[in-house]
Amino acid sequence: MNALHTPPPAEKLSLNTATVKTQWRLDQIIEGCARHDIRGISPWRDQVAEIGLSRAAKMIRDHGLSVTGYCRGGMFPAIDKAGQLAALDDNYRAVDEALEIGAACLVLVVGGMPKGSKDIDGARQQVHDGIASLLQYSRKVGMPLAIEPLHPMYAADRACVNTMAYANDLCDVLGDDGFGIALDVYHVWWDPDLRNQIRRAGKQRLLAFHICDWLVPTTDLLLDRGMMGDGVIDIAGLRTAVEAEGYSGFHEVEIFSAANWWKRSPDEVLLTCKQRHLECC
Amino acid sequence: MNALHTPPPAEKLSLNTATVKTQWRLDQIIEGCARHDIRGISPWRDQVAEIGLSRAAKMIRDHGLSVTGYCRGGMFPAIDKAGQLAALDDNYRAVDEALEIGAACLVLVVGGMPKGSKDIDGARQQVHDGIASLLQYSRKVGMPLAIEPLHPMYAADRACVNTMAYANDLCDVLGDDGFGIALDVYHVWWDPDLRNQIRRAGKQRLLAFHICDWLVPTTDLLLDRGMMGDGVIDIAGLRTAVEAEGYSGFHEVEIFSAANWWKRSPDEVLLTCKQRHLECC
Repeated sequence: MNALHTPPPAEKLSLNTATVKTQWRLDQIIEGCARHDIRGISPWRDQVAEIGLSRAAKMIRDHGLSVTGYCRGGMFPAIDKAGQLAALDDNYRAVDEALEIGAACLVLVVGGMPKGSKDIDGARQQVHDGIASLLQYSRKVGMPLAIEPLHPMYAADRACVNTMAYANDLCDVLGDDGFGIALDVYHVWWDPDLRNQIRRAGKQRLLAFHICDWLVPTTDLLLDRGMMGDGVIDIAGLRTAVEAEGYSGFHEVEIFSAANWWKRSPDEVLLTCKQRHLECC
Repeated sequence: MNALHTPPPAEKLSLNTATVKTQWRLDQIIEGCARHDIRGISPWRDQVAEIGLSRAAKMIRDHGLSVTGYCRGGMFPAIDKAGQLAALDDNYRAVDEALEIGAACLVLVVGGMPKGSKDIDGARQQVHDGIASLLQYSRKVGMPLAIEPLHPMYAADRACVNTMAYANDLCDVLGDDGFGIALDVYHVWWDPDLRNQIRRAGKQRLLAFHICDWLVPTTDLLLDRGMMGDGVIDIAGLRTAVEAEGYSGFHEVEIFSAANWWKRSPDEVLLTCKQRHLECC
């Protein structure tokens, strides 16, 4: 980074399993993390389902990995009541899976507008209502929900919560008990209000810290995320900002990269994550 | 749109010349607007240069078109002082051109971070300083500057002013005299704070209203804008919101569409703009 950069503790690195999902099944990813001494992991539901939930949970326990988050719940808005209930049912299952796998939180990608809708306010209301319902269950069983504000370019079809400010607003309304925020630098780095909103969130709400980088140019809205250090995000500065609030959790690297990192040797990807974590975060 | 939709006045339609820039030179676009009874035009500097500024100005006058904006000034941040001065020089020329062509305002796309920089706060400071300098000239000669907040996906390399709130902040600091905002629905539709910020801007600051649509999926960050009605933006609702503040200016359609509208007959594009303006805006 620069002469004044203090590297983060290596043991704070966590691997979101999407980062090597095209190369390895989850069992291989777990073994890869252990082999490369990466101490945290954040698995996706489809990858868990592929090898079986109880086997995934046992392997992660046996290798002593911390599950820094479970990906993912959310996708609340639907065109009708039946769709909303189906989404909620699926979220209850996600909470149960997150519990069994020992996750620190269930990450919520809240969903966008139902197909054919132009009503983003309505979608946001559905998100509020869906989380309110889910919290009644997740609080009882003790699984924290971490809402992840997604970049505004995903507002239509992936998540209509697009700023830390709005995530904080939801925390204000729904209560901090078992509810907080997953801050991914990729989604929020551009926001002139970001430092204020990190302060507003504070230690209690900051449940996860995700890292990757914004490439210039970015050639695909979904699958062109960069390795830390290859883009323009001041990741070290943002780590310092969350740490100033008392955040002491993992730094979870999550890179969707169809044309680059998903085509490389997964061992090389993990080695690069470790190196860049120390140099650029 | 729907049964309750009141179509906008057809004479409020303006054509940003980027919309058919691959098919027609500026002289052909001016004639096309006149032929299709589109009363406003917003030309780009490169297209003006191609046919000559005085000829462009004369043709636009002769056809009785209103120049709803001139595209564009801005791009203030640079790696060093020489680069900043060069950018400012170019902006002075843009102001002069905008005057000669009779534009209602010079649109500012403010620029992102200089190559190699991760300092978005520094870029924003440079934008502030650049506009402050330019205003000393533009106010004297009477050319309003309209800052255009660009979608956050352009924060790194095109414009580090990405919300109406931040544009309003700049207006607060730099003063409203000869300075305001170009609101493009494509860039700001997702913002949960948008309605508040439109009210905060008010009639005085709302210098231009640009329309197109956000497609789902969007396949390219730059060149996949949609025709009004083909995407998810509640354009009519946003028109109503700016009109509620007293905005009575043009509705300028600006579509960058490499794979679709730039490949169609430009007469078809103009006819479609007219139809969709009435139906969807």
